[in-house]
Amino acid sequence: MTKPIRVIQFGLGAIGCAAARLVLGKRHMQLVGAVDRDPKLIGHDLGEVLGAGRSLGVTVSGKPAVLFGQTPADAVIHCATSSFLEAYEQFVEIVRAGLHCVSSCEEAMFPYYRYRDLAGRLDDLCIKRRCAVVGTGVNPGFVMDTLALVLTAACQRLDSIRVLRVVDAATRREALQRKVGAGLSEDEFHRLAQDKKIRHVGLTESLVFLADALGWSLDEVNEDVAPVIANKQVKTQFLAVKPGCVAGVRQFAHGVWQGRDVLRLELQMYVGAPQPRDEIEISGEPPLKLVVEGGVAGDSATPALLVNTLPLLVEARPGLHTMRTLGLPRIAL
Amino acid sequence: MTKPIRVIQFGLGAIGCAAARLVLGKRHMQLVGAVDRDPKLIGHDLGEVLGAGRSLGVTVSGKPAVLFGQTPADAVIHCATSSFLEAYEQFVEIVRAGLHCVSSCEEAMFPYYRYRDLAGRLDDLCIKRRCAVVGTGVNPGFVMDTLALVLTAACQRLDSIRVLRVVDAATRREALQRKVGAGLSEDEFHRLAQDKKIRHVGLTESLVFLADALGWSLDEVNEDVAPVIANKQVKTQFLAVKPGCVAGVRQFAHGVWQGRDVLRLELQMYVGAPQPRDEIEISGEPPLKLVVEGGVAGDSATPALLVNTLPLLVEARPGLHTMRTLGLPRIAL
Repeated sequence: MTKPIRVIQFGLGAIGCAAARLVLGKRHMQLVGAVDRDPKLIGHDLGEVLGAGRSLGVTVSGKPAVLFGQTPADAVIHCATSSFLEAYEQFVEIVRAGLHCVSSCEEAMFPYYRYRDLAGRLDDLCIKRRCAVVGTGVNPGFVMDTLALVLTAACQRLDSIRVLRVVDAATRREALQRKVGAGLSEDEFHRLAQDKKIRHVGLTESLVFLADALGWSLDEVNEDVAPVIANKQVKTQFLAVKPGCVAGVRQFAHGVWQGRDVLRLELQMYVGAPQPRDEIEISGEPPLKLVVEGGVAGDSATPALLVNTLPLLVEARPGLHTMRTLGLPRIAL
Repeated sequence: MTKPIRVIQFGLGAIGCAAARLVLGKRHMQLVGAVDRDPKLIGHDLGEVLGAGRSLGVTVSGKPAVLFGQTPADAVIHCATSSFLEAYEQFVEIVRAGLHCVSSCEEAMFPYYRYRDLAGRLDDLCIKRRCAVVGTGVNPGFVMDTLALVLTAACQRLDSIRVLRVVDAATRREALQRKVGAGLSEDEFHRLAQDKKIRHVGLTESLVFLADALGWSLDEVNEDVAPVIANKQVKTQFLAVKPGCVAGVRQFAHGVWQGRDVLRLELQMYVGAPQPRDEIEISGEPPLKLVVEGGVAGDSATPALLVNTLPLLVEARPGLHTMRTLGLPRIAL
């Protein structure tokens, strides 16, 4: 039997805690450390923080560099921010400590587009320290990008890809319901949208990941956000939306190549969305239409993607990876 | 730019010709040779055989070993037989010549189950000659196995997988319509089924591929074949099925692990099948149900899978591979 992967959890928000709990149940993984900046968590036993019902003998640290120096480990699950710029210094610290890293940071799913130079530097450092880093999750990371790319393996010719993800935000955690603008007036929505405070981060990353893998040097990349207005009252566990108010968000990204609209990604996340689903439609030979009925549940699937990617990561060549350059995604044992 | 992959086409049946035509259109591939045992093809220009409308300057050979010795090449697309035993000597010849090989041989998709010893020997030879070999196609190779495995990457917990593929054989080539028994009486069907002359080869391979990847040491592997009886007349381009006669085949494979039916694959291939589709249903957390509407068209997708797997193969470590051990499947440029 191979040795278990020794994992440090970096960030103990909802996704981070779910990932850490999942590691606890994996035969070939071992949870050896945790770090968070929240003073309410620092110093506590991780078992208590995770609600594991037992002490894990692992104390939550507030000092990543000290923790990395003192704890023999193989990999870090990083769940701390959506911003690659914010995550960058943390990645550097992780890689300098000789640790692999899988991150839920949305912009890290394909950092070569927005942060070409920094991504290149991180790749260099990874190679120097013989570590692998990748950003993943359910979206970006899986349903709107990796899964669509895998489907193209059945195609002789590919003309365009359209992906639609419809999420009923009422079934998701409160933070996400707030993030999509549920309950706001249209004016408030537009003000916050302008400040990029209402926005799913990662749609453009999914788009440019696909374009890169398909060899399409896009001439244009566009992204747009619009409110979905409730036409009747919608109540969730956490909030109520009056008719005429914002139920959530519709977000589009599209990519133009050689004058053609070759990539169209659309994400609808609003409370009360009917028929939640993921649809991938490929125009080509053969044409293909794939539907995940009900959609892939994000709160559950994102921690799964993070943990399931770890075994691929520790076997990958050193470097800053994308889901394209790792092995075949699958559940970790 | 990397050098193009120089390809030899081994076998010029329907799938082999389609794969070779596809290679012609790929920027990073070059068709440099072809071999077949049919005296009607040997000595002719490959362009003529493929209906390419031009001479390719490649003459169809009847002698693989001579061809391999005289033609600088990187890889072989092997489309000659469903049987690993029949293909084995051909694989040995290919690998001895230092060539990678992707094969449509159904039993080669997971040869470690039925031919453990021979598969091990071929793996050894691959390593010695620094070549990679893999069996793939749409089924087995993609819709009922690889795609299902990829979907598990979104799962925290996996309890069981059920895959259903429904193919309207009326939309497929004549050889396939005959192979599924369309037009036979029930008695004829059972006689031929007993002799294993009516049977889709590869369902068990898909099943044991999944079990192996998921760490399920199956206690039982069962496979069964039953006729689908037409309840009304069905006419295709090639044949007619009277009511009460056989329209095609239903084939099941299931795997039991720790007393539970953890894997169930069902393939329905008959003329006039309504609602053709591929369904993958995962019981677990989160539960997932994926549907490919209309199903992945086999005649078009199998050559695609073969050609699209080539770039993964030439970059893989030497050895006898499965789709699990190569990189992320995707369309080749």
